Amino acid sequence: MTTTLQSLARDAWVTPDTGLVDIPSAIDGRVVARASSAGLDFAAIVRHAREVGGPGLRALSFHQRADRLKAIGAYLIERKEQLYAIAADTGANRRDNAIDIDGGLVTLAAYASRGRRELPDTKFIIEGEVEQFGKRGSFVGQHILSPLHGVAVHINAFNFPCWGLLEKLAPALLAGVPVIAKPATATAYVAEALVKLIHESGLLPPGALQLICGSTGDLFDHLTGQDVIAFTGSIETSDKLRAHPNVARHSIRFIAERDSLNAAILGTDIAPTDPEFDLFVREVAREMTSKAGQKCTAIRRVLVPRAQEAAVIAALQATLTDVKLGDPRQDDKAMGPLVSRGQRDTVRAAIAALAPEADIVFGDPQRCSGDGIDTTAGAYLSPILLRATDPMRAEKLHAIEAFGPVATVIAYDDVDQVIELVRRGEGSLVASLFTYDNEVAEQIALGIAPWHGRLLILDRDCAAESTGHGTPLPALLHGGPGRAGGGEELGGLRSVHHYMQRTAIQCSPRRLAALTGTWSRGAPSPVSNLHPFKRNFDELTVGESIETASRPITLDDIEHFAHFTGDTFYAHMDEAAAKANPFFPGRVAHGYLILAFAAGLFVDPAPGPLLANYGLDNLRFLKPVSPDDTIRVKLTVKQKSSARRPEYGEVRWDVEVVNQNNEPVARYDLLTMSARPT
Amino acid sequence: MTTTLQSLARDAWVTPDTGLVDIPSAIDGRVVARASSAGLDFAAIVRHAREVGGPGLRALSFHQRADRLKAIGAYLIERKEQLYAIAADTGANRRDNAIDIDGGLVTLAAYASRGRRELPDTKFIIEGEVEQFGKRGSFVGQHILSPLHGVAVHINAFNFPCWGLLEKLAPALLAGVPVIAKPATATAYVAEALVKLIHESGLLPPGALQLICGSTGDLFDHLTGQDVIAFTGSIETSDKLRAHPNVARHSIRFIAERDSLNAAILGTDIAPTDPEFDLFVREVAREMTSKAGQKCTAIRRVLVPRAQEAAVIAALQATLTDVKLGDPRQDDKAMGPLVSRGQRDTVRAAIAALAPEADIVFGDPQRCSGDGIDTTAGAYLSPILLRATDPMRAEKLHAIEAFGPVATVIAYDDVDQVIELVRRGEGSLVASLFTYDNEVAEQIALGIAPWHGRLLILDRDCAAESTGHGTPLPALLHGGPGRAGGGEELGGLRSVHHYMQRTAIQCSPRRLAALTGTWSRGAPSPVSNLHPFKRNFDELTVGESIETASRPITLDDIEHFAHFTGDTFYAHMDEAAAKANPFFPGRVAHGYLILAFAAGLFVDPAPGPLLANYGLDNLRFLKPVSPDDTIRVKLTVKQKSSARRPEYGEVRWDVEVVNQNNEPVARYDLLTMSARPT
Repeated sequence: MTTTLQSLARDAWVTPDTGLVDIPSAIDGRVVARASSAGLDFAAIVRHAREVGGPGLRALSFHQRADRLKAIGAYLIERKEQLYAIAADTGANRRDNAIDIDGGLVTLAAYASRGRRELPDTKFIIEGEVEQFGKRGSFVGQHILSPLHGVAVHINAFNFPCWGLLEKLAPALLAGVPVIAKPATATAYVAEALVKLIHESGLLPPGALQLICGSTGDLFDHLTGQDVIAFTGSIETSDKLRAHPNVARHSIRFIAERDSLNAAILGTDIAPTDPEFDLFVREVAREMTSKAGQKCTAIRRVLVPRAQEAAVIAALQATLTDVKLGDPRQDDKAMGPLVSRGQRDTVRAAIAALAPEADIVFGDPQRCSGDGIDTTAGAYLSPILLRATDPMRAEKLHAIEAFGPVATVIAYDDVDQVIELVRRGEGSLVASLFTYDNEVAEQIALGIAPWHGRLLILDRDCAAESTGHGTPLPALLHGGPGRAGGGEELGGLRSVHHYMQRTAIQCSPRRLAALTGTWSRGAPSPVSNLHPFKRNFDELTVGESIETASRPITLDDIEHFAHFTGDTFYAHMDEAAAKANPFFPGRVAHGYLILAFAAGLFVDPAPGPLLANYGLDNLRFLKPVSPDDTIRVKLTVKQKSSARRPEYGEVRWDVEVVNQNNEPVARYDLLTMSARPT
Repeated sequence: MTTTLQSLARDAWVTPDTGLVDIPSAIDGRVVARASSAGLDFAAIVRHAREVGGPGLRALSFHQRADRLKAIGAYLIERKEQLYAIAADTGANRRDNAIDIDGGLVTLAAYASRGRRELPDTKFIIEGEVEQFGKRGSFVGQHILSPLHGVAVHINAFNFPCWGLLEKLAPALLAGVPVIAKPATATAYVAEALVKLIHESGLLPPGALQLICGSTGDLFDHLTGQDVIAFTGSIETSDKLRAHPNVARHSIRFIAERDSLNAAILGTDIAPTDPEFDLFVREVAREMTSKAGQKCTAIRRVLVPRAQEAAVIAALQATLTDVKLGDPRQDDKAMGPLVSRGQRDTVRAAIAALAPEADIVFGDPQRCSGDGIDTTAGAYLSPILLRATDPMRAEKLHAIEAFGPVATVIAYDDVDQVIELVRRGEGSLVASLFTYDNEVAEQIALGIAPWHGRLLILDRDCAAESTGHGTPLPALLHGGPGRAGGGEELGGLRSVHHYMQRTAIQCSPRRLAALTGTWSRGAPSPVSNLHPFKRNFDELTVGESIETASRPITLDDIEHFAHFTGDTFYAHMDEAAAKANPFFPGRVAHGYLILAFAAGLFVDPAPGPLLANYGLDNLRFLKPVSPDDTIRVKLTVKQKSSARRPEYGEVRWDVEVVNQNNEPVARYDLLTMSARPT
């Protein structure tokens, strides 16, 4: 059954009727779908994103957006089998699809959870510390990040129609920026099915997500400086898109993830008897065959000490011999076909291009077999292992990516040489290093780090829990410099920031506190007419404060505290020894005594809305407290944040302890849970 | 006297003899210098930076690089009059040159100080927290930033030959990346003099700084993915440079700072009697005339409530009438000429282009006068104030930057309209807002923030210490989206990061600790055979730990502590009330009692190398401690950092307090100063 793929434009599904392109099945070449974007009004699509999608998303807080992502994830998990059912025609078996479909859902969930945990329940992010200019502190600076008012154009590669779409979508939506997704046509039917599910869930505001099946048409003509383009694909397409005059003219952010000759390196310390040797062989073979090697993170260059070259090749040959080709609908243990016969032709051409520099030591690019598969109509290809004939002279091996089950063993002589060889890739998404030696790890990892977005150091200690060479994780950067495109995706909130503008705000502390809802030194701190611990979370006002009575700290107190707690450090106990210490004028009070007395001064003992002190941040002791000094405390509401449960809120208090001369002796942030009215 | 400018190529000064371009004086048009880069071997210059400059810089730690910057700053301060002496010919008077010369030195000093204070004394930066994957904690991730192995190409604008060079140079050198600086030819004689001073100081490693006077030749042909281009100048030049095929092909980072129609906004709440009105008029006039308006941050659009339009124009007319033109060598109270007659022609053309949308309400572009100045040979131009005739229909006013003493008053009707008008600038470096109302501030600031890199909210509270609309500060972002180029400069360490590659490292905690010198949970923590407080800073090993004896906490202890400190919070004192609290099982020990007893358990009382506990970070109470629970402490060396003085080092300890069931009840970082052997 051949379906015509629809685009989602201005919240309506549009069926094209001209310019249709056939999309063949990887398994048998039959046409599974047709796609075209002819007739779409791209100007109107962009306008809809800007005028409807953006305002709708920006009306939500980060937490509300995170909740939507979470709900969409839950909705999709229940329906994911629909995606598995149609995705086999891309050549992916169930295991491959788990990377794409479940991997995508995990990423969505990770951003939902990070949005809740690491972002405030507000509409912009406060970044970094308040910077003070001038001595009086009446003029300060603070960076904020606020969502761009444009649209995120996501252009995805064919290999991960679900993961690719979701890993770009989640950070953009969390930031508050609407998305126009343009999947690669070869597997657009999976992306279309995914977006249909998201759309039918009704969980996104109108205009937050649109989908273009087919080409991008004149889309780029309508982009300006508030827009972001995120691209995954080949260096040629990337160059073509980036060359659109609007990109330079409007400084449109262009995040690219492109070709990458990722390396796996067997350390100089590893012999065939070491566990890392087996880990290495297993990882290389897995990366060659998972998704039939069609992963931007797959291992292309297999760097081994010359002494281990023969052993590595023999072990890889043995492992690859066990790899069976099979129909992805039936056998998730076997390797499926490439995405299309066209792609197979491209990979064969790349292998041929590498021939002057590398011999084939496993597989035949023209021939393969498997139980009950049609290797003529289907895009099947045997794993191909190459061996570099003259590594230091090779150029193509470091430049041509055969985007299939293909890798090249490259022998090296020493650590300097392997670093040099890896760098010849001119920038990759990821490299992995197999060593159990700190010095080898340090030399190689630091030697190649500037060429990589991610480095895996795999050994016996972490192998059991390792997520592997090829797996980008939501928490870690995905992207690499140079040939790999220079883009940064994922990496926790880092990718959320790509959709936001950083702005330095300069003003008075009073204005800043009003704008950011965060008190800082110099902002008004009106004395509360009620102990603020008696106010529930919602009643508390940022900036309200109390000043406590004062209390002397006597030598007796210090002695008593020392013997009670057991902390008889000489600076508290021995005048002469304390005086000899460069920081103390003589015996001084314990820091913890100051904290404890401070709490004694500000705590309101009776039950009330303040439920618990759950922590303390940034405590600094600023000046020693000597016997018979007197302390008092100023306590100010610094910031209020919603907590995980609606019954409480988190309150951050600025605590300043001063002595009888009004000199600060300690400062810290006190963290409390305060009840909310029910 | 006409000098031929030299380029600094491969650590040697090269004098060109062909292709020389005359550089005229702004004051009288005589030729002050000639420049050409003809004959320079750009391939060799790039290679020298990569092969000599980079390794030399990377051999230094961040602190060592910061110290070099500081020393260069000190060297230059003593010799800055040499720069003042020659810079008058650029048209800048002493006040203008203070912005350029002293401003540049302040920026250099700020990066030196920030490098010392905020960067470690190592060769890469640890960024963010350790991310744990898997339940056992045997596989973790950590981002690091390490210097790129390429070269920073800095292409500067004519208006700030010193500041522009130094504000780009300092972050690159601090990152560890060598610089090839290419000043604008119009004022290259000042930049050349500056680089000659830096070079003669001998304070930089060979190859760390090269200078190209003249054009960039085929420089870009030699750049690849480890290089960074930072450009300040016109949108046309930026487009031309960015279009070089290497930029896209190798994903070369391109940081641009371009045209910017910066706005100053008088808030809807401000009447002529408010102090903010005067601040507004003063700031607009100052930005129009300082550096004769040739600042990328100068105010071009003067947005005022329609009701105040006449009053603002009248006040500006009065203020501008007092502006005298004068020879910059003699009179630093007067406004000097533009940089050249050519530049004056360009500004006159821009004013003419704006004529259909704006009337001139002050000044005559063709005519000006001043005591003893030659307005024909010199590039003098009167301040020109325009008034938009139909603001909502205007297009050129938001697109054409007259880069001279020119600004346009634009009347607006309400807050929504002024936001819309500001946004039509399509991205600016900075905007300033004059208001004394929180709501106006919030609406306008958040409404225009995504279009700006910096926003100044100026009012009576901060005016005295304000650094002004036009002043980029080392601590705050300088750059803007869209038309302004999308680049980010300054912003504290943010600009240092532009010259570094972010890499996610994945490995076992053991390997990570060895690589980063920072212990994290899961890494080995061998029990020390000596109390680590007895070891001096240099003897301490990251990861070494002690576990203390255990100590019960009795109800008596809690009672005693409560009455001693005064902290009689009900959760410690009243079983029934404590039970009613959602976080506590009944009466619990004070958090500060846990801290104090923990210290009592781990403190070594006798004088030794541990000098002081100066603070605590990230304290979290994880589980309540009930009466008769028993606590003990595990103390581990987490990180060592050099302190400001060589006699001490800062040690960060991981402290984990556990109960009798080995459950963590509190965790924190303890910060100590430890002595170093002398």
